[in-house]
Amino acid sequence: MNQNWGEDKAEKVYDPEDRNHNHDNGKLKDVGELSVERLFEDQEVPSWRKQLTVRAFVVSFVLSILFCFIVMKLNLTTGIIPSLNVSAGLLGFFFVNTWTKLLGKSGLLKQPFTRQENTVIQTCVVASSGIAFSGGFGSYLFGMSEDIAKQSSNTHDFKNPSLVWMIGFLFVVSFLGLFSVVPLRKIMVIDFKLTYPSGTATALLINSFHTPKGAKLAKKQGRELGKFFTFSFLWGFFQWFYTAGDDCGFASFPSLGLKAYKYKFYFDFSATYVGVGMICPYIINISVLLGGILSWGLMWPLIEKRKGDWYSAKLSDSNLHGIQGYRVFTAIAMILGDGLYNFLKVLGRTIIGLSYQFKHKDVSSDHPTADHSSQVNSEVSYDDSRRTQLFLKDQIPAWFAIGGYVAIAAISIAILPHIFHQLKWYYILVIYIFAPTLAFCNAYGCGLTDWSLASTYGKLAIFTIGAWAGASHGGVLAGLAACGVMMNIVSTASDLMQDFKTGYLTLASPRSMFVSQVIGTAMGCVISPCVFWLFYKAFELGVPGSQYPAPYAVVYRNMALLGVDGFSSLPHNCLKLCYGVFAAAILINLIRDLVDKRWARFIPFPMAMAIPFYLGSYFAIDMCLGSLILFVWEKINKAKANAFGPAVASGLICGDGIWTLPASILALAGVKPPICMKFLSRGRNAKVDKFLGN
Amino acid sequence: MNQNWGEDKAEKVYDPEDRNHNHDNGKLKDVGELSVERLFEDQEVPSWRKQLTVRAFVVSFVLSILFCFIVMKLNLTTGIIPSLNVSAGLLGFFFVNTWTKLLGKSGLLKQPFTRQENTVIQTCVVASSGIAFSGGFGSYLFGMSEDIAKQSSNTHDFKNPSLVWMIGFLFVVSFLGLFSVVPLRKIMVIDFKLTYPSGTATALLINSFHTPKGAKLAKKQGRELGKFFTFSFLWGFFQWFYTAGDDCGFASFPSLGLKAYKYKFYFDFSATYVGVGMICPYIINISVLLGGILSWGLMWPLIEKRKGDWYSAKLSDSNLHGIQGYRVFTAIAMILGDGLYNFLKVLGRTIIGLSYQFKHKDVSSDHPTADHSSQVNSEVSYDDSRRTQLFLKDQIPAWFAIGGYVAIAAISIAILPHIFHQLKWYYILVIYIFAPTLAFCNAYGCGLTDWSLASTYGKLAIFTIGAWAGASHGGVLAGLAACGVMMNIVSTASDLMQDFKTGYLTLASPRSMFVSQVIGTAMGCVISPCVFWLFYKAFELGVPGSQYPAPYAVVYRNMALLGVDGFSSLPHNCLKLCYGVFAAAILINLIRDLVDKRWARFIPFPMAMAIPFYLGSYFAIDMCLGSLILFVWEKINKAKANAFGPAVASGLICGDGIWTLPASILALAGVKPPICMKFLSRGRNAKVDKFLGN
Repeated sequence: MNQNWGEDKAEKVYDPEDRNHNHDNGKLKDVGELSVERLFEDQEVPSWRKQLTVRAFVVSFVLSILFCFIVMKLNLTTGIIPSLNVSAGLLGFFFVNTWTKLLGKSGLLKQPFTRQENTVIQTCVVASSGIAFSGGFGSYLFGMSEDIAKQSSNTHDFKNPSLVWMIGFLFVVSFLGLFSVVPLRKIMVIDFKLTYPSGTATALLINSFHTPKGAKLAKKQGRELGKFFTFSFLWGFFQWFYTAGDDCGFASFPSLGLKAYKYKFYFDFSATYVGVGMICPYIINISVLLGGILSWGLMWPLIEKRKGDWYSAKLSDSNLHGIQGYRVFTAIAMILGDGLYNFLKVLGRTIIGLSYQFKHKDVSSDHPTADHSSQVNSEVSYDDSRRTQLFLKDQIPAWFAIGGYVAIAAISIAILPHIFHQLKWYYILVIYIFAPTLAFCNAYGCGLTDWSLASTYGKLAIFTIGAWAGASHGGVLAGLAACGVMMNIVSTASDLMQDFKTGYLTLASPRSMFVSQVIGTAMGCVISPCVFWLFYKAFELGVPGSQYPAPYAVVYRNMALLGVDGFSSLPHNCLKLCYGVFAAAILINLIRDLVDKRWARFIPFPMAMAIPFYLGSYFAIDMCLGSLILFVWEKINKAKANAFGPAVASGLICGDGIWTLPASILALAGVKPPICMKFLSRGRNAKVDKFLGN
Repeated sequence: MNQNWGEDKAEKVYDPEDRNHNHDNGKLKDVGELSVERLFEDQEVPSWRKQLTVRAFVVSFVLSILFCFIVMKLNLTTGIIPSLNVSAGLLGFFFVNTWTKLLGKSGLLKQPFTRQENTVIQTCVVASSGIAFSGGFGSYLFGMSEDIAKQSSNTHDFKNPSLVWMIGFLFVVSFLGLFSVVPLRKIMVIDFKLTYPSGTATALLINSFHTPKGAKLAKKQGRELGKFFTFSFLWGFFQWFYTAGDDCGFASFPSLGLKAYKYKFYFDFSATYVGVGMICPYIINISVLLGGILSWGLMWPLIEKRKGDWYSAKLSDSNLHGIQGYRVFTAIAMILGDGLYNFLKVLGRTIIGLSYQFKHKDVSSDHPTADHSSQVNSEVSYDDSRRTQLFLKDQIPAWFAIGGYVAIAAISIAILPHIFHQLKWYYILVIYIFAPTLAFCNAYGCGLTDWSLASTYGKLAIFTIGAWAGASHGGVLAGLAACGVMMNIVSTASDLMQDFKTGYLTLASPRSMFVSQVIGTAMGCVISPCVFWLFYKAFELGVPGSQYPAPYAVVYRNMALLGVDGFSSLPHNCLKLCYGVFAAAILINLIRDLVDKRWARFIPFPMAMAIPFYLGSYFAIDMCLGSLILFVWEKINKAKANAFGPAVASGLICGDGIWTLPASILALAGVKPPICMKFLSRGRNAKVDKFLGN
């Protein structure tokens, strides 16, 4: 899963791998002194067809459902999605390893579990659960719905979710990305030797699992993950009993007092976000908290004092013309400022990198974009030559890729206007003409910096197509749909290239990677809408202050509105505030890039700061608690914290995430929790006691 | 603190030392192979005056207040008081050790910290906090109050607590026990070589603290205790915020559902009772739970079905003529049955033991009552001779003891009728004539079996003096007051003898033990009433279902009523039930004593089963959780669990106990908690939400 925040950026900055990475790098160096591939020398590499086993896809299917639930829950609660690569890797290894052990004992095992097969699973799961993110169920797709429309100033342009059109839409837009960059894999991976930090980290992880020492550690990590998975699941189950009504249960626990609770400062006992906090780097958690303090602790209370002056006092708290407008639009401004800055930055580096590549055709190892592993000088030639040999063995012909792209694009252009009649066929054609270039840019930028800017490209589509269509022709829906088309191409392109890099480092065939991606994407196109549908039917989505507020759905819809209507609908002084926040986002980024590295790591990330503007700080407190736990753990036993921290975090996230499956089934079956754990002030409690006749 | 359950029994059966004991015994054996006293040979034993240092009494004073709060809290919540010897020992050692270390660094240290001084602290703290138990603040003394009288069938005989008369009463009755058995110390400790398991265990603990290895472990244990003390204190503090009204907060958390909550099956998040559960043997915790299931899970629901038939349907839940009557009187029947059985058993053993002693004047080491340490055959002579030499060095003249007894008895006879005008001077005289014999019996029985039967002797006084005075002459109050007089003598007598044993084994002088006891008792006579007064003023005590139901206060008052009025006031069929329960209590005890030891440990204790009859199972669930934690811990790491389990438990108990100090100060200052955490069924919640206009 190469995305975060329901927003671009991602890998490098927010990437948990960073830590794990270092850890694995350390391990790599241990063995790297004599080359990784020498360790695996006597292991035969199976042919690409043999890498694609049935068991791999069965496990992938199960894990896809699991991760789809997790990503969907994250999408709809805060939109903050940490990298779940480690969990996917661990769980995949754990499942297949147990399976092969069992089969091995029964004598039925035909084929041992190889790292290539592991890579196939990893690729398939990442592709499948990637759709849960790029499908926009927490952003553009759900932003089209009536529920979200009612909260915006444009209430008549909406398209409610339905299982049929969602699956159809995903099928016609999700495969294009794969075909668009396939021909470029050799250039990116072998010629440019791009880093793809997440892909590399995943490969290191998989390689380490298949050494005897690594397998032992992985098994221990798997056990730890299982323990916290169980705990987190049971905790979710326990909490459920106390949520008989609104504002009931642990999620409404005013642990910092009622006043703080009113301004969304409280610990909501969510195992998921404690886990997310353990995975995200400290500075991200601090950024989120800082954003929360700045907005809900300072700006909103100050603006509320202007009630009746800046905005009508009669408006409800969730009305976009009132205080809610300030919350949503400043968040958008900050996201756009950050996005613009990073877009320009990555674009700049892409251009510089490309021009450098074309100037110096042979790549020297001291070049900044050169591959990590090339730094292990003497022995690297063996690793490199063996990897390159296997990478180039199985070719995917260029005509196949180009033909596939054109065919799918044609189908897509024919079908999409039937799904969204506001999205004219020529809009789509234009997108598809530019898309391969943008997909290449994104895949290249991601390889350099580990940042996938998919949703920034999506926003570009929102504003351009939205403005082109115009308000009278349903520009809002056209913009959101265009965003989906664009995001899917761009996002899958960078995902696939990451996987090629992983495959390169684990000697998995590019063909098996591609097939696995295709199968994974197809799975995702069915699983994700189904899981979303379950959420949609079982819970109330998109209501501010509820369990699933789907913050980005509101943000995306309002971005589309801004694109179509301009700034006319903003409340008083909101535009000025937005300019300020927009400039601040760019400035903060600029400062981080300019100051010394020692200080740069103390400078917050504007993107992370923007989310609590809309939601409040409660999840920031969860995340900071996660940070704190990890911090203390590192102080006590750094080696253990590094080895097991990600496993514990994954367990917490996965357990709570999968609890949403039984929870939604209970909700669908009409089984309601029996008890309400309610929090009342002393005065209100006295009244209630009197009312109840105690 | 040589009592448990606010009831007799105690040491052996319920004694946590049992475990710790084994542990320490194990350690003793390590060094015992070459005699304990050889290890301390080169340490000079200070003179008895030098053992009584100012710092020892300062530390004792601080610890006395701490333990007084803890014991008072336990008295008023359930009456279950685990042995806090280990905590007292650890904390005493920790405090003085830190103090001497600090002074040592500053160069101001005049005298090193010796084990004799440690014994003095231990003795003083035990004497002082013993008063918190034997003062009857949770039983006979508070049973006299109007609050409790209102819940009984005799509402006009009451005497409300007041600081002045309580302190006066304690001063005139608490010192008699000391003087009554002092002359017998040589016979009990040296000639009879009685075991006094608790006293021995304490001595072993203190001895171990003063070896280098033991001191290191003690320091680690102290740190662990400190950690859990802090946690438990902060947890108490946190809980406080959510208790704005009745049935608010974690103590009312229906963790097993609302139906189970109605029948008092829930986890009340009390760190104290989780700690108590960790200290009490598993079978005790199981007994309590079993009693709860039998009564609140089976008997009361069945009896409630007879509502309107067995008792009037109009009566409230807490009316003694209704369902509450069944609860209280069956509990009393079970306590009395158990008490009677054990009284007869211990009396029998006392008589057999004594007759054996007088037949065989020289004590052979294979005699069942012989001292533990005499089993270490070869080298023991050195230990024994050195201990005996020092024990006999400092004499307390017999004339001093007898004179003291007579003088205090005379003062007591003169003053007590002024405090309780129902208690005639000749009742007191009769008690004081019989008391030394009973005190001796109790001290001897305790030395043999580790059971102090103080409250059984107290009940004897309730029934005899109550019946003698008769209902028309305030027999209830006379009985309760007589109970206090008797209990104080008998209880302090066995405590002092335990301390002499501890002193004997740590080479502390009998004189310093006696002085420490006297000072400790005097401290207790002031501190305990003051602490009780704080509770009395700050909280609502003795209300069924509240935070401090003071169950034994109700039980004792109703025992006195039974003694005076007979069975006339019992509800329908209650007497039959009581007979059954009484017989069952005797039968269960009999079975345990008759069956094989392997099975005996699975047979529950009736005394432990009786308490939840009145209170419900919530604290049983806490205690079982404590058991479970210890059980799992022992499975994972037995050595660590044995070494640190008691320290963790003590930390949990002490932290929560001391939190009641600030809690009561807040209550007195009128600071009320701001939030109510309320638990409502779904239906009620909907009503409340409607009422609050949400």
